[in-house]
Amino acid sequence: MSFAPQPTDAAAIATIRILAADVVAKSNSGHPGAPMGMAPAAHILFSRFMNANPKSSKWFNRDRFVLSVLDLTCERNPCVLQYTMLHLLGYKLSMDDLKAFRQLDSLTPGHPEAGHTDGIEVTTGPLGQGFANGVGLAIGQAHLGAVYNKDGFELINNYTYVFCGDGCLMEGVSAEAASLAGHLQLGNLIVVYDDNHISIDGDTACAFTEDVGGRFVSYGWQVLQVDNGDSDLAAISDAITAARLEKSKPTIIKLKTTIGFGSKEQGTHGVHGAPLKADDIAALKTKFGFSPNEKFHVPKETYDAYAEAAKRGATSEASWNALLASYGEKYPTEHAELSRRMAGKLPEGWEKSLPVYKASDSAQASRKLSEIVLTALSPVIPDLMGGSADLTGSNLTKVKGSTDFQPSSTNLGTYAGTYIRYGVREHAMGAIANGLAAYGGIVPFVATFLNFVSYAAGAVRLSALSKAQVIWVATHDSIGLGEDGPTHQPVETNAHFRAIPNLAFWRPADGNETSAAYAVALKSTQTPSILSLSRQNLPNLEASTIELASRGGYVVHEETGEDLTIVSCGSEVSIAVEAAKKLKEQGLKTRVVSLPCWLVFDQQDLEYRLSVLRSGAPILSLEALSTLGWEKYSHEQYGLPSWGASGPYLKVYEKFGITGSNIAVVGKKVVDFYKKKGGEVVSPLIKAFTL
Amino acid sequence: MSFAPQPTDAAAIATIRILAADVVAKSNSGHPGAPMGMAPAAHILFSRFMNANPKSSKWFNRDRFVLSVLDLTCERNPCVLQYTMLHLLGYKLSMDDLKAFRQLDSLTPGHPEAGHTDGIEVTTGPLGQGFANGVGLAIGQAHLGAVYNKDGFELINNYTYVFCGDGCLMEGVSAEAASLAGHLQLGNLIVVYDDNHISIDGDTACAFTEDVGGRFVSYGWQVLQVDNGDSDLAAISDAITAARLEKSKPTIIKLKTTIGFGSKEQGTHGVHGAPLKADDIAALKTKFGFSPNEKFHVPKETYDAYAEAAKRGATSEASWNALLASYGEKYPTEHAELSRRMAGKLPEGWEKSLPVYKASDSAQASRKLSEIVLTALSPVIPDLMGGSADLTGSNLTKVKGSTDFQPSSTNLGTYAGTYIRYGVREHAMGAIANGLAAYGGIVPFVATFLNFVSYAAGAVRLSALSKAQVIWVATHDSIGLGEDGPTHQPVETNAHFRAIPNLAFWRPADGNETSAAYAVALKSTQTPSILSLSRQNLPNLEASTIELASRGGYVVHEETGEDLTIVSCGSEVSIAVEAAKKLKEQGLKTRVVSLPCWLVFDQQDLEYRLSVLRSGAPILSLEALSTLGWEKYSHEQYGLPSWGASGPYLKVYEKFGITGSNIAVVGKKVVDFYKKKGGEVVSPLIKAFTL
Repeated sequence: MSFAPQPTDAAAIATIRILAADVVAKSNSGHPGAPMGMAPAAHILFSRFMNANPKSSKWFNRDRFVLSVLDLTCERNPCVLQYTMLHLLGYKLSMDDLKAFRQLDSLTPGHPEAGHTDGIEVTTGPLGQGFANGVGLAIGQAHLGAVYNKDGFELINNYTYVFCGDGCLMEGVSAEAASLAGHLQLGNLIVVYDDNHISIDGDTACAFTEDVGGRFVSYGWQVLQVDNGDSDLAAISDAITAARLEKSKPTIIKLKTTIGFGSKEQGTHGVHGAPLKADDIAALKTKFGFSPNEKFHVPKETYDAYAEAAKRGATSEASWNALLASYGEKYPTEHAELSRRMAGKLPEGWEKSLPVYKASDSAQASRKLSEIVLTALSPVIPDLMGGSADLTGSNLTKVKGSTDFQPSSTNLGTYAGTYIRYGVREHAMGAIANGLAAYGGIVPFVATFLNFVSYAAGAVRLSALSKAQVIWVATHDSIGLGEDGPTHQPVETNAHFRAIPNLAFWRPADGNETSAAYAVALKSTQTPSILSLSRQNLPNLEASTIELASRGGYVVHEETGEDLTIVSCGSEVSIAVEAAKKLKEQGLKTRVVSLPCWLVFDQQDLEYRLSVLRSGAPILSLEALSTLGWEKYSHEQYGLPSWGASGPYLKVYEKFGITGSNIAVVGKKVVDFYKKKGGEVVSPLIKAFTL
Repeated sequence: MSFAPQPTDAAAIATIRILAADVVAKSNSGHPGAPMGMAPAAHILFSRFMNANPKSSKWFNRDRFVLSVLDLTCERNPCVLQYTMLHLLGYKLSMDDLKAFRQLDSLTPGHPEAGHTDGIEVTTGPLGQGFANGVGLAIGQAHLGAVYNKDGFELINNYTYVFCGDGCLMEGVSAEAASLAGHLQLGNLIVVYDDNHISIDGDTACAFTEDVGGRFVSYGWQVLQVDNGDSDLAAISDAITAARLEKSKPTIIKLKTTIGFGSKEQGTHGVHGAPLKADDIAALKTKFGFSPNEKFHVPKETYDAYAEAAKRGATSEASWNALLASYGEKYPTEHAELSRRMAGKLPEGWEKSLPVYKASDSAQASRKLSEIVLTALSPVIPDLMGGSADLTGSNLTKVKGSTDFQPSSTNLGTYAGTYIRYGVREHAMGAIANGLAAYGGIVPFVATFLNFVSYAAGAVRLSALSKAQVIWVATHDSIGLGEDGPTHQPVETNAHFRAIPNLAFWRPADGNETSAAYAVALKSTQTPSILSLSRQNLPNLEASTIELASRGGYVVHEETGEDLTIVSCGSEVSIAVEAAKKLKEQGLKTRVVSLPCWLVFDQQDLEYRLSVLRSGAPILSLEALSTLGWEKYSHEQYGLPSWGASGPYLKVYEKFGITGSNIAVVGKKVVDFYKKKGGEVVSPLIKAFTL
């Protein structure tokens, strides 16, 4: 598309710059540098290219925009730029909302939060995440386009635009994502890099002197450059056009800008640390032909210009809806399925495919049980799109007969494939999955060893914060992995993830519990899940059912007038059952409780929870990791005192006393201690108040 | 150095390959592919270049070797290669130790553990860590060399060699470290990249098709290639020689190898998954002229060849010791200081410089108090070498007048500088700090927001596992950071780090506690520390002293016959004190306990701990994050129910009821609840058993 200058361009760009300065000054927090620098690119992109309808912000084939640019690191996310654009375009964001920037409970928090503010696609702020989310959004488009587009029916062909800065490009998570995006030849991914050479510590010369363009060429990207991003609107427009034309490579546009353009301190570190001073803002306004005293002013011509862009989007959606309708006549099956997926609904009756087990069924590793679930569900839930960080053979995540998601030129798969080879890139994998979930129509699952989910901690907490339905298949989940030793054996991991709000951390003990974990994870469209799975075989429990396990906790072995209750999860539940048997031989009645998911158990009514973890006898917890947090559900805690050890797994369990016989000894100690202590033993669930 | 072939080369290389196969076969775990492929490079490096003394494995100027190569990801660390080399060279590792590979409590665990096995410099296994550790080791050499070397006294000039594979190079942590190493022009860093195009998921064509060489050129590295790493010993030797000669750039040598060279399945995925079959090993032995039935055989000529290499190292150390002695005569002051640092001792009496505060001193943010400590200690402890991930102005980690650690060509500093500009590279920063600590003579500190220490979780757990004295200055440690909002406000973070063994997580409440945190962190040579610091101002407490806080927990406000004890830490302690005052007005006696470091408190004798958290009245915990784990020290817990919020920090605290007045209300509830419940209130520290 050749660039056609408009008389309204200058005022629109000036408005963005000035509004940013006003908003930031009022909030007295945040920072106007980047929005002022990126204003021309934002204006050109949104007024000329973006295909989205502000009045229908969830239209499925809309272009996605991600603001990952963080001129100065996470502390100074210039998201005021994004809020300003959303307001000008007519999204549900008023001028009063802009004035409430960074104020409590406003629609304009310090960093953009998906699901909180209309028009925000993903939650950004932590550096590099937005960049990787963009790769996920682009994969989503490439995949659904390959699955549902037909000759004459280009239903899914949107672009994904990402604004990023030096900070994002220094982060490893963006490097991992960029390498994968190049390999996958994601032609509809367009990144605009705010190449302003400034970061919090000052000039990037102090730490970031690599040849960014050369690096992206080596990843297989198209690299374009705009030398004057401050005012050469034609060059910006031409670069975006060239990026859209390149269909077999993602594009990064190096946009040379002057941070804080227009300000007295433009191009310096001074525009980062703090809002502009009043006199500087006044001078800025005069310079751009605005009244120095008028605040939050938007010229009518600017609103009009963006109303035109909004109208373009509305028209585009209308014709797309017509196209979808005729698609429905020609391809009723695909239409029905696509419509269901766009609505975020799973197929009717998919739960019926969940594997169910009897206690007599043979013991299996829960990573294997997970493979059985995936094998059973993949045919009925095409929405499942998963992969592993180069541990496919260990995570058991590739269902037989599934196709790789690959550019066809690799001869290794096609974009219609559902299995993603993430490479050894855990952090990007987690952030890309957030992008896939945000795209819609896809339920992403990702896999690695539980211990290495920690590499992706930054992405995992954002899944939970932004309510992204991402499922982690986290295998080799304890000292049970054996020989690989303490560098690979999680200790702190479960406490870490159990402390993240809205994250369902599951540690199933057998087949039915594994099916339950998947069942709840798939129904929880607003909650990510981590499935902590064993390398070693686990026997099926007598009492386990999908229904019971789906409550997050239940009684595995009941006794009346018990002397002790052992609460456990995962591979240690069967050890607890064994201990209970041994205690029985000594005449001690021991109940056993399985607690596969704390988040879900905590959501049950108190009466149920108290029936599971009741008063009257001491409760002993058992897990082959740190005991931290188990005090919430037990009076006494048994687990790892420190790090694990390298060796055959049964010997490692033996070394740490996590065996039926030793836990029986510990259990006896607990019973004696509480008998001696006397008084009523009250359930740890009975509290003075709830948060 | 021009290559001189030796008649013993072939047998030595065959021995390494065969030994690897035998060891792995016996352990029936792990994987011989990489050691077999990397055998020629290992032989050339150790027999011709490595300057180290096996009989004195801690000699300070030794060349450092890091095995980061993980052909197949973390599951298959071919560390048998490293163990084999250590054995052949005469380190404290016998043939029986090799036979005990991956057995419980052996000296040859599944992954190399520093401090556990003689000659292992850093703990590797988790992908990318070893590569970044190598960058830290190289920085250590460059820095100490610049500080202590004099004309004619090249005391510190060792090389750092890293073997890495495709897996390591896919990880973001290595990308971050490589970009920084290029910027820093670390000429003594030499990476040998096992370019065998195989990873767990098969051919790297499925996920890793970038131009690795081009990427490293863009980072500013010298990139060399050896086309036949299987048998072209001269080319391997020439490449290492060229790498050593390039003094202003780190070097990566792309070594094309055939995985499992010599095996029937060489070059295939088959050699990864499992040990070689017996017949394959027999054929391998025959092929290389060994007896097919003899196991664990090392020809005398091979032992002799490595004895020569070991002797070269011993001679080299001897002449170095002589050089050091004459250095001592000419530069007694530098010699004394260097000797002290090499011995890992801090200067006498440094504690006297710790700032001490009175309650009347003005309130300050603990990040500012941290800056005051660093300012006071830096002149007396030159060992301190720190930096920030591009948040210097927020973390307050750069002491006035300190010089940047930079190559002088940047005109921004020199290698003698102690302040490292890490860029926005948290994960690499943590792993590089582990390398700095491993190098010796340096006490590294690193900084970012507490919430983003999570980006480095993989490196943090390895600091703790490998006993690396690394100090994290983690500022903006709660909702107290205000406007940046939930994407930046830690919630799960403290539970995560408190669950890591041997990691001292400090959350000081005021000036004296901040000094105490540094005091204990600096004395703990085997333990990393995270200092969780506030953005907002904190008043100084009446009762706080460095001595008391150094016990990890103590009574801030005492009462006899109390109705309640509130236990808290960091910025919430003063809120607890305020609540106690309000409760006093209602006639309720409330003790207040500060618990800045759980690890250190848990190390105190039970009597002391019970005097701090005693029986008799309920204990309420208060922290502005997840309450997970506080059940260990309290009966009731108050904290964040979920995520934080964006807004001015006092309003955010108000929103979540973390104010003196609301905590007084909650405290009253707790008192009433326990009065109603009746019976003795027992301290949560009284348990049936200890792990």
